Amino acid sequence: MEFNSVSKPGDNCEPDRPAHPGVFPTCEAGKSDNQSAARTVDFPVSVVLPAGGTGERTGLQTPKQFCSFLGRPLISYTIQAFERVSWIQCIVVVVAKENMDLMTDIIQRFQHRKVRVVPGGSTRHRSICNGVLALGEGERPAADRPKVVIIHDAVRPFVEEDLLYKIAMAAKEQGAAGAIRPLVSTVIATTSEGFLDHSLERAKYRASEMPQGFTYDVIHQAYQRCSESDFDFGTECLHLALQYCGTNAKLIQGPPTLWKVTYKRDLAAAESIIKETLSRSACVITGGCAQAGTLADALQKAVGALDMVHLSASDELPIRGTEPLAIMDLASAAKLRNVLLYGIQLHQSKDAERWERSVLKVAEITSALIRERSSALVGQLLQA
Amino acid sequence: MEFNSVSKPGDNCEPDRPAHPGVFPTCEAGKSDNQSAARTVDFPVSVVLPAGGTGERTGLQTPKQFCSFLGRPLISYTIQAFERVSWIQCIVVVVAKENMDLMTDIIQRFQHRKVRVVPGGSTRHRSICNGVLALGEGERPAADRPKVVIIHDAVRPFVEEDLLYKIAMAAKEQGAAGAIRPLVSTVIATTSEGFLDHSLERAKYRASEMPQGFTYDVIHQAYQRCSESDFDFGTECLHLALQYCGTNAKLIQGPPTLWKVTYKRDLAAAESIIKETLSRSACVITGGCAQAGTLADALQKAVGALDMVHLSASDELPIRGTEPLAIMDLASAAKLRNVLLYGIQLHQSKDAERWERSVLKVAEITSALIRERSSALVGQLLQA
Repeated sequence: MEFNSVSKPGDNCEPDRPAHPGVFPTCEAGKSDNQSAARTVDFPVSVVLPAGGTGERTGLQTPKQFCSFLGRPLISYTIQAFERVSWIQCIVVVVAKENMDLMTDIIQRFQHRKVRVVPGGSTRHRSICNGVLALGEGERPAADRPKVVIIHDAVRPFVEEDLLYKIAMAAKEQGAAGAIRPLVSTVIATTSEGFLDHSLERAKYRASEMPQGFTYDVIHQAYQRCSESDFDFGTECLHLALQYCGTNAKLIQGPPTLWKVTYKRDLAAAESIIKETLSRSACVITGGCAQAGTLADALQKAVGALDMVHLSASDELPIRGTEPLAIMDLASAAKLRNVLLYGIQLHQSKDAERWERSVLKVAEITSALIRERSSALVGQLLQA
Repeated sequence: MEFNSVSKPGDNCEPDRPAHPGVFPTCEAGKSDNQSAARTVDFPVSVVLPAGGTGERTGLQTPKQFCSFLGRPLISYTIQAFERVSWIQCIVVVVAKENMDLMTDIIQRFQHRKVRVVPGGSTRHRSICNGVLALGEGERPAADRPKVVIIHDAVRPFVEEDLLYKIAMAAKEQGAAGAIRPLVSTVIATTSEGFLDHSLERAKYRASEMPQGFTYDVIHQAYQRCSESDFDFGTECLHLALQYCGTNAKLIQGPPTLWKVTYKRDLAAAESIIKETLSRSACVITGGCAQAGTLADALQKAVGALDMVHLSASDELPIRGTEPLAIMDLASAAKLRNVLLYGIQLHQSKDAERWERSVLKVAEITSALIRERSSALVGQLLQA
């Protein structure tokens, strides 16, 4: 006698189909809930998300923000991070003209609701400025304007509500605020001949990261007053606020996950973070026989790191045959609904030790399948 | 009728067993061969590799340099990167006293030949200084001393011979040389109250990375003359060479892969680089029947990114049965010899279209198996 246990690694598993945004677990779920639950923002906040980069530093043809991770482009994760924050009203995504259609398509596929797409300028600052101006447009420009504008990068998908809250509050109070991180490397000044001039004392400096926040008035005024050279060669919004509005930004240390996906290796790092978060829940469907429950419990124990949902169905098991081809057909159908289905066949044994070893093997295979989410292996009937 | 194709993803596949160092492909193999072939260094060069870090920034218990990637600790990859450079004579690894035994064990397991282990000091500079002093010891101290000392980090495993050559040559000529990278983030100075003081113009500064090179005399003298405060709080060897020897280091831009494995996400990035390199070769063993050759050729075409070695053996096929248990037993035996063995069963069909689809499926599964190197799935008989 044999029966099947089927692992279903949540949603959003297949590389080339969209996940349902409504049930997609957020990367920070459970981390900042305690902090953010008590915190509300009682003034309007909107976001400008420059996404005009060409991705030349990853060495890939697709710009990083459009690279797909488990079926969803990076920028969609970033948008999602803002969309789930209740007090954020509007997200203006600024993209190169040639990517306007692609971006519109992403918004539709992943059902983003708070997003407006605006064409970018020739430089980062011109793009951000376009985004800020777009926030001030409308029939009643003054009334519709946000009090605070948060500026972020499309390629920093792991921003948490807690940090956004701190940035928004500090921006409202001080006029400007920005996330910082300690320097990983010493920073040195070079001579024009390529020699060391001097090195900076690492403790006195910080890396300026994103998000940054500004009152609408400060960022708007900074862009009104800044020079063409600032528009062309500047990179730092905090600098413009200081130089043209006399506003010294409040600096707030962010977590390491704030980093900017820059190089090819960062894509692997981002994917690992996304996978690690997704892997936290799984659903096990077993047959209705007596040992099925025992197996499910043993599994839950063995695969300790997962939040397992155990569904025991005696009459309505989705898999009846254990023939490889039957499972393969079922897997093909499931794939269309964004479910990666694998079969694990466990040969029952009355030998307690053998049974325990098999259960551990099921757990090991299940963990590996959930972690890797390989679409090449769906429909396989694996042996435990 | 059916036959098997077995994918054997090279060596070094199993997470908890050592790879054979002799055949382990180096990460830069083939990349810098052209440049380095013609270049020789005719003076003695040795390396100091501080590896005393505690890994607090990864949030892991094991210090990063001892974290294992496909069965080999990170530091062993770094040592290997130096060992394969013919003109490097000795690698002094400086580790915390409590890790001396672990390090000695790693050297034995992975058969490193040029390494000496030295106990570290209480800070990075004290550790490097211990390493430098160890290079000057011996019966004929002056004669045995290297002309140039290269200092690197244990947690930067992807250093290439070409860069080492440039650093060594520049160090000999100028007294000191160091690798640099462009800044990813703007660097800002903060006030003591946590506000922006000013931001640095990104183009004028660089991140100081490793490796760095010094003549033995310069680095030795710098450590003889520097203060206790330098030993305790300093981080930058180039700075000591400038301050205490008046030597302005030559700066040389390195590739992005030079980066320092610092955060947890960097472990995933490092693993992806190692896997990507390893995945470049595979060996396919097929049965001797007529279609086996066709299959192997089709596979080679479909899995284009791999260097496939095609072994066709009609009489001495290692797998005779196609029963799941037979393959599982064979896989268990293979695992002891660092081979991950998976079976793929292909049902022969006279329908050309069906045959082609199955071949593509074999290629898809093979690619996934080689990429993921999952030890949980060895011995499985997968269906194509």
